[in-house]
Amino acid sequence: MDMQALQNLLESVQKGKTPIQDAMESIREFLSKDLGYATIDNQRQMRVGYPEVIYCEGKTPQQVAEIARYMYDQGSDILATRANQEVYRGIKTIDPKVIFNPVARTVTIKRKEKKPTDTYIAVVTAGTSDIPVAEEACVTAEFFDNRVERINDVGVAGIHRLLDRLDRIKAAKVTVVVAGMEGALASVIGGLISKPVIAVPTSVGYGASFGGLSALLAMLNSCAAGVSVVNIDNGFGAGYIAGLINKL
Amino acid sequence: MDMQALQNLLESVQKGKTPIQDAMESIREFLSKDLGYATIDNQRQMRVGYPEVIYCEGKTPQQVAEIARYMYDQGSDILATRANQEVYRGIKTIDPKVIFNPVARTVTIKRKEKKPTDTYIAVVTAGTSDIPVAEEACVTAEFFDNRVERINDVGVAGIHRLLDRLDRIKAAKVTVVVAGMEGALASVIGGLISKPVIAVPTSVGYGASFGGLSALLAMLNSCAAGVSVVNIDNGFGAGYIAGLINKL
Amino acid sequence: MDMQALQNLLESVQKGKTPIQDAMESIREFLSKDLGYATIDNQRQMRVGYPEVIYCEGKTPQQVAEIARYMYDQGSDILATRANQEVYRGIKTIDPKVIFNPVARTVTIKRKEKKPTDTYIAVVTAGTSDIPVAEEACVTAEFFDNRVERINDVGVAGIHRLLDRLDRIKAAKVTVVVAGMEGALASVIGGLISKPVIAVPTSVGYGASFGGLSALLAMLNSCAAGVSVVNIDNGFGAGYIAGLINKL
Amino acid sequence: MDMQALQNLLESVQKGKTPIQDAMESIREFLSKDLGYATIDNQRQMRVGYPEVIYCEGKTPQQVAEIARYMYDQGSDILATRANQEVYRGIKTIDPKVIFNPVARTVTIKRKEKKPTDTYIAVVTAGTSDIPVAEEACVTAEFFDNRVERINDVGVAGIHRLLDRLDRIKAAKVTVVVAGMEGALASVIGGLISKPVIAVPTSVGYGASFGGLSALLAMLNSCAAGVSVVNIDNGFGAGYIAGLINKL
Amino acid sequence: MDMQALQNLLESVQKGKTPIQDAMESIREFLSKDLGYATIDNQRQMRVGYPEVIYCEGKTPQQVAEIARYMYDQGSDILATRANQEVYRGIKTIDPKVIFNPVARTVTIKRKEKKPTDTYIAVVTAGTSDIPVAEEACVTAEFFDNRVERINDVGVAGIHRLLDRLDRIKAAKVTVVVAGMEGALASVIGGLISKPVIAVPTSVGYGASFGGLSALLAMLNSCAAGVSVVNIDNGFGAGYIAGLINKL
Amino acid sequence: MDMQALQNLLESVQKGKTPIQDAMESIREFLSKDLGYATIDNQRQMRVGYPEVIYCEGKTPQQVAEIARYMYDQGSDILATRANQEVYRGIKTIDPKVIFNPVARTVTIKRKEKKPTDTYIAVVTAGTSDIPVAEEACVTAEFFDNRVERINDVGVAGIHRLLDRLDRIKAAKVTVVVAGMEGALASVIGGLISKPVIAVPTSVGYGASFGGLSALLAMLNSCAAGVSVVNIDNGFGAGYIAGLINKL
Amino acid sequence: MDMQALQNLLESVQKGKTPIQDAMESIREFLSKDLGYATIDNQRQMRVGYPEVIYCEGKTPQQVAEIARYMYDQGSDILATRANQEVYRGIKTIDPKVIFNPVARTVTIKRKEKKPTDTYIAVVTAGTSDIPVAEEACVTAEFFDNRVERINDVGVAGIHRLLDRLDRIKAAKVTVVVAGMEGALASVIGGLISKPVIAVPTSVGYGASFGGLSALLAMLNSCAAGVSVVNIDNGFGAGYIAGLINKL
Amino acid sequence: MDMQALQNLLESVQKGKTPIQDAMESIREFLSKDLGYATIDNQRQMRVGYPEVIYCEGKTPQQVAEIARYMYDQGSDILATRANQEVYRGIKTIDPKVIFNPVARTVTIKRKEKKPTDTYIAVVTAGTSDIPVAEEACVTAEFFDNRVERINDVGVAGIHRLLDRLDRIKAAKVTVVVAGMEGALASVIGGLISKPVIAVPTSVGYGASFGGLSALLAMLNSCAAGVSVVNIDNGFGAGYIAGLINKL
Repeated sequence: MDMQALQNLLESVQKGKTPIQDAMESIREFLSKDLGYATIDNQRQMRVGYPEVIYCEGKTPQQVAEIARYMYDQGSDILATRANQEVYRGIKTIDPKVIFNPVARTVTIKRKEKKPTDTYIAVVTAGTSDIPVAEEACVTAEFFDNRVERINDVGVAGIHRLLDRLDRIKAAKVTVVVAGMEGALASVIGGLISKPVIAVPTSVGYGASFGGLSALLAMLNSCAAGVSVVNIDNGFGAGYIAGLINKL
Repeated sequence: MDMQALQNLLESVQKGKTPIQDAMESIREFLSKDLGYATIDNQRQMRVGYPEVIYCEGKTPQQVAEIARYMYDQGSDILATRANQEVYRGIKTIDPKVIFNPVARTVTIKRKEKKPTDTYIAVVTAGTSDIPVAEEACVTAEFFDNRVERINDVGVAGIHRLLDRLDRIKAAKVTVVVAGMEGALASVIGGLISKPVIAVPTSVGYGASFGGLSALLAMLNSCAAGVSVVNIDNGFGAGYIAGLINKL
Repeated sequence: MDMQALQNLLESVQKGKTPIQDAMESIREFLSKDLGYATIDNQRQMRVGYPEVIYCEGKTPQQVAEIARYMYDQGSDILATRANQEVYRGIKTIDPKVIFNPVARTVTIKRKEKKPTDTYIAVVTAGTSDIPVAEEACVTAEFFDNRVERINDVGVAGIHRLLDRLDRIKAAKVTVVVAGMEGALASVIGGLISKPVIAVPTSVGYGASFGGLSALLAMLNSCAAGVSVVNIDNGFGAGYIAGLINKL
Repeated sequence: MDMQALQNLLESVQKGKTPIQDAMESIREFLSKDLGYATIDNQRQMRVGYPEVIYCEGKTPQQVAEIARYMYDQGSDILATRANQEVYRGIKTIDPKVIFNPVARTVTIKRKEKKPTDTYIAVVTAGTSDIPVAEEACVTAEFFDNRVERINDVGVAGIHRLLDRLDRIKAAKVTVVVAGMEGALASVIGGLISKPVIAVPTSVGYGASFGGLSALLAMLNSCAAGVSVVNIDNGFGAGYIAGLINKL
Repeated sequence: MDMQALQNLLESVQKGKTPIQDAMESIREFLSKDLGYATIDNQRQMRVGYPEVIYCEGKTPQQVAEIARYMYDQGSDILATRANQEVYRGIKTIDPKVIFNPVARTVTIKRKEKKPTDTYIAVVTAGTSDIPVAEEACVTAEFFDNRVERINDVGVAGIHRLLDRLDRIKAAKVTVVVAGMEGALASVIGGLISKPVIAVPTSVGYGASFGGLSALLAMLNSCAAGVSVVNIDNGFGAGYIAGLINKL
Repeated sequence: MDMQALQNLLESVQKGKTPIQDAMESIREFLSKDLGYATIDNQRQMRVGYPEVIYCEGKTPQQVAEIARYMYDQGSDILATRANQEVYRGIKTIDPKVIFNPVARTVTIKRKEKKPTDTYIAVVTAGTSDIPVAEEACVTAEFFDNRVERINDVGVAGIHRLLDRLDRIKAAKVTVVVAGMEGALASVIGGLISKPVIAVPTSVGYGASFGGLSALLAMLNSCAAGVSVVNIDNGFGAGYIAGLINKL
Repeated sequence: MDMQALQNLLESVQKGKTPIQDAMESIREFLSKDLGYATIDNQRQMRVGYPEVIYCEGKTPQQVAEIARYMYDQGSDILATRANQEVYRGIKTIDPKVIFNPVARTVTIKRKEKKPTDTYIAVVTAGTSDIPVAEEACVTAEFFDNRVERINDVGVAGIHRLLDRLDRIKAAKVTVVVAGMEGALASVIGGLISKPVIAVPTSVGYGASFGGLSALLAMLNSCAAGVSVVNIDNGFGAGYIAGLINKL
Repeated sequence: MDMQALQNLLESVQKGKTPIQDAMESIREFLSKDLGYATIDNQRQMRVGYPEVIYCEGKTPQQVAEIARYMYDQGSDILATRANQEVYRGIKTIDPKVIFNPVARTVTIKRKEKKPTDTYIAVVTAGTSDIPVAEEACVTAEFFDNRVERINDVGVAGIHRLLDRLDRIKAAKVTVVVAGMEGALASVIGGLISKPVIAVPTSVGYGASFGGLSALLAMLNSCAAGVSVVNIDNGFGAGYIAGLINKL
């Protein structure tokens, strides 16, 4: 239910067509819907401009499917992250437009593609192994109608690969840098451009990478200003924030 | 063996019906029973008012079943936590009233349901993925005859969901807050109510949640007074303590 | 040296007024200036749009003063962070306009105040103890001509304090949230607004806050999307990034 | 301002004695008072039944004194924790009844002593070095009119010292256990009594105690149910929660 | 090869029966035997009084079997730890006396049982789940001809279980305490007896036990003197040291 | 009060010379003495064979002095660890025999030197910087009448220094190895001798020694069996345990 | 493309045989080749003297095979690390000379064996379980035409095994020491020889080895100078650096 | 005592000028000298080609001075690290050539300057604050007669500063990279050159740099091969190893 629907409801109450009790129930649900195991934040679209996103880990495929259907029936598009084949099977009955991206581990339903932004987000990876996280960022940003430019495998071990592609990064409104191991790419890019950098540490690496801790700490301690950081492997979060900034 | 049984035994000794040696053996077992791999704390019911609870991890299903049968034969009700299907199969021959809750991972036998308390415990989760831990808390509290009120998926990402349900939390005698990720819900609820909050960090999350460490540290550092914390994923502990407080 | 100066130099070469050797030396210095203990990044203004900022820790006051004077003579304004009284004394001979902010621990010289931006950055603290870090963010953002709105001591222990001031936060183009202890404020604000949030964990707290680790982890694990994080106590970094975003 | 004051104000508005604008300002302040560097939570007394407590670390003595005076003038009693001699000097001009407890590091003003509760809180330390933290818990609990029983230096290295004093602990409604090093006392007491235990790890110890981490982890992993934990050295928090439980 | 064999060899050289080159090769092997992937410490029996023990993790079953056979052929008895069914199958062809203990995960060959020591080692567990680690300690100590007394499941949650069995612990020459979770049992026993305690933290627990870290830190910080600690789950090490002490 | 004193008391009661009430008070104190801030474990001498040792950190010099005087008056010798000049001044009025060892940071009073043991404890350091911790071990062991042999600065960087002195280590009944940095000395000695090794990690080192963590972990993971470990810098604990073993 | 090929290309342009556009494309690819998911660093051979090495983890076997074929077609030899059977199957169609080393987990293609260096690298392991990591170092060093000498299982638990083989280590130009657990071997060897030591901590161990952290910290804190360290289990890195040094 | 002195001694014995007992004492001291608190490794010069270096932390100035004098009298040059003004005063009486470098915190005595190597070591810092650690490396390398080239403050925040100076780095035989914060400089240089890189993480930084942990982990996880790492702030170790390599 969006603001238009709310206005219609209130007018219907004014005209006596909708009883007070029914309207109260509708408005109550307008705020949040209690499914027992989940309380869906219906007000979110209005409050922050975007619908809820379904984080699939720790939910059963049945739960995901029911939440998705409820939201879909409320008029919302659907983005489910950390999804697998089983989640996909649960959602795909809702709308034939459903798309499963197995690299990004996302399931999406968009009723109607909107024109993407003119400005774009650069999503840059240090290595091939970082692509799944980067792809989650890309899918998220694109779901919210942002244009995305992908630049892969330009880590600092061969820095000229980055320098060759710097123009495409400089032209972006905001850049997402996805890197594991020592995560140095975020600092290097941060020192070369004048736009905000969202750094995503990944769990790529072994030994003293401690599941992404090395990249996380490196990015937090970036000697280049202009770099802020999201959780390890949090491609979704990076894509979401980059989208907020790109659309300012 | 409860206090009544002890009195009966001593009277039997007094009357010469029970030889001293037999009585000594009975009283010795009254304190604890040695099964070789386990020393059952028979005195516990008398000392702290509750029977022992069987923590299943690290025990074989056979061991759990034997401990359960011994305790059952001593007159105790049974609560086994971190149980699985195999544990359930081992216990279910003891009494047809056995219940296996696969979400909470508990197996329980209660001979006789008692009337639950008038006051109640609110068990609140931040997200759907926290429900298994919360359910362990609920089952534990209910096993010890407490009334429980479940409120799910009201994390701070959409704080109005919490505010809408605040009355039910305020009316509780004690509240259990179950949250992973950044665990902020405990602080927020702690700042809004005047009753004790038992916070349960969960291992829900990824990357820098480090298996629940982020929520644990956040809850320990709650800026709201009135919040105390149990181990990560320790629904049992939270339900137990909340029960102690609820029954004061 | 800015682009205009470079053009003048080249014209002077073209006209034969400046010998090639002298011009090469000037251009070389245009890129970076070697002071022995420091290599000043003269190209930075042109590359990322802002001059270098002097981080004082680990530098002697003499080194800071020499770097500042060199940069000042190159035409740059001066921002020195983590400065103390002694640093201030070293710099204040350069220009009487120097300002020392002992709360933010900054020393600044701006030759000419520019009109600040119309849009503004909200800088919000959870508690009074977080103000020094927040003030470093404010001074930084203001140094780069951003308008800043300060909102202090609205942590989640009394969440209505935040809700009362939410309009001023919602109207900001970007919000900096500064919080120690459990750092929950970042998630709560992230869930309430539709603009980017830059979260700054602080070392405020004790015991299991582990010098800001608790707030850092909490903010990285924020269940609300739209939150990215900088280093513990890194007010400068937050103010800098927020400025980049505010000026997009 | 308490509920009575609010009613008076509204009646004054009703009678036309107080202009709407003045009343609105009063009610606004009834919610929170903005001192610039602090936003005082005036509603707290009403919301959770207790006034705000002033945590002094990170605040200047002047800030503490101003906050204390404002709260005092609003009718509140004063409890300032982590206070030192300088804070004490700042507050003592407010009311001659001010008390500085240098062991607990607290400054308190109570206008009128109330009769303490009949039930009591046992505050137990493992060693002499844990007393400052325990004393903070005691002062806090007593400030909120709870009766407290102190039992010191009964750690598990000589467990008979504890067993000799067990009756006084068993008779308490709730027990606070304060211990550093390996923190085993919390588990031992938790296994012996049937009431809630609030465990406070302290930073007493050296080497692999890592500033209290060893005791914190031990207490979180207590094999005895009925134990919940607060932050390292958080005597205030423990005294506060124990008071909440004692007054149920 | 023991000292007797060495003497025989040298006498054979003296008598001219063994050529110098052959003797040198024998003596060289007397020090260590190079199998390519392993260098067997033949001198160990003579140097520290015990043969090498085979730690199976990270070795293939074939490697274990070859090492075992070589040592067996040298006259040594065999103790292989962290062994599984596959390792057992590889070794059992060597001597029909081989014993596989699946709880302790040990494979042993003793040609001839020696009379165990008169004094004994008490091996005490806090809970049933600690038994596999304790059993590794028992098998190790018994392999080296020590008498062992097993006392299981007497953790501090029901401390009377321990007190009831204290006499058997006090009579031991040295005590091994095996405990996970908060590991408090080591401190409690350390405070009650006057003999050395070897504490073995186990990985039993969950959440903030961090794989045994909580018990490890607790035991290292024991407030009772007389407690020293081995690695997490290192039953072998504890049994070995306890044996050294018991045989003094 | 020792067993003789107890017998005398009971005989005095039997003869009617001591009233029951007085005797009860004496026996009660025989168990433990409550000084308010400390509960002295008078029974300890009888239970574990040694008097209590006073750990000075976290106690005021006044508290230490009072505890020492009380214990001294009960007939006990005095060992105070982590003592400083101020503690020494507080204790030295008790008995002119008091000795302050500023390297070991100990204060001791022994009324009568006993003949030390025939067997001895080797206390070995890796470097000169480890000597203060080693000296605490030596003083402790000597206080309890053990003979000690000191061998300093034989770390593995020049392993022949150790091999030259190995005979004196092999002849000891038990060896204490004190080492910081990588703590390798414990493993090397453990592999060379057939007696128990007590390893003491020290905080000597910098950077990634993390206050002794590197040596602690190394010693816990010793590939040589026969090594057990005490807390970082815990010379007292090592000397105490080594004394227990030496006297078996 | 090597320098010769570049010269040929430029001569061809000079002679007008190659159009400018084609040459630019060739040179561009000379710098790096964009495969979409990977950006191959063609310049690397020229820049650092060695071709790129393919790290297989996080890449699909298809991606590895395509990268390998592209590099092979450019004239490069192939070294793929962390490879498995599936990767091997993908690569083996490229050239029948392909070799899969399942212990080292490497796949290599060398068109032409070069004569190895006269000087050699000693690769020494503490235990049999460390061999897979050591073998990765050996294969890497041999791939780059270094002679390697393998010495296995000479850890400090039986230090004479090392001393017996010291001559072979002393004669090496550089030594790689591979050890898990407490990693003491690196310090011991570092103290005995006058050549650089590259230390490789391994994840061999359990409990408080924390996945190799204990060996890593020990090696970083080596009291013997001359030891530098690579990541846990990073055999490749050690072999690579040792090769660089050996070829100086 | 060097080899020449040993030969002289033995000849003197042969000629009957030196009694056997005196010669034995001399040779014994040739191996190591026992000063009580220190065992000086006299054999070290012969074994590894360099004299012992005195690490001053944890030693009293008197101990340092005595060790230095003893070594000096044996003919050794002196390098004392982590020295302060007080250490300097203790040593300067030994030889007027003594030099105190307060930035590097070193005290050195070289009787005779040798011609430095033709090849050189590049010592590169990321920032001005890293210079003290770098200077310790430079002094160490120069003490052992290596030529050193210093390049300061070329961190990745302005990477062109590095690229401008790359030729001087490429021409070095080995490069030491000294960096705090995120330590990215080591990876970037490692990717650009074909010689070994010794990386030194520094404790420069704050917050989540955790005393140099961030730079340490980043350097260990370098995506560029050819980088090995020493302890945090270990300039001495880096200079020493670089010297070993430079002199190969």
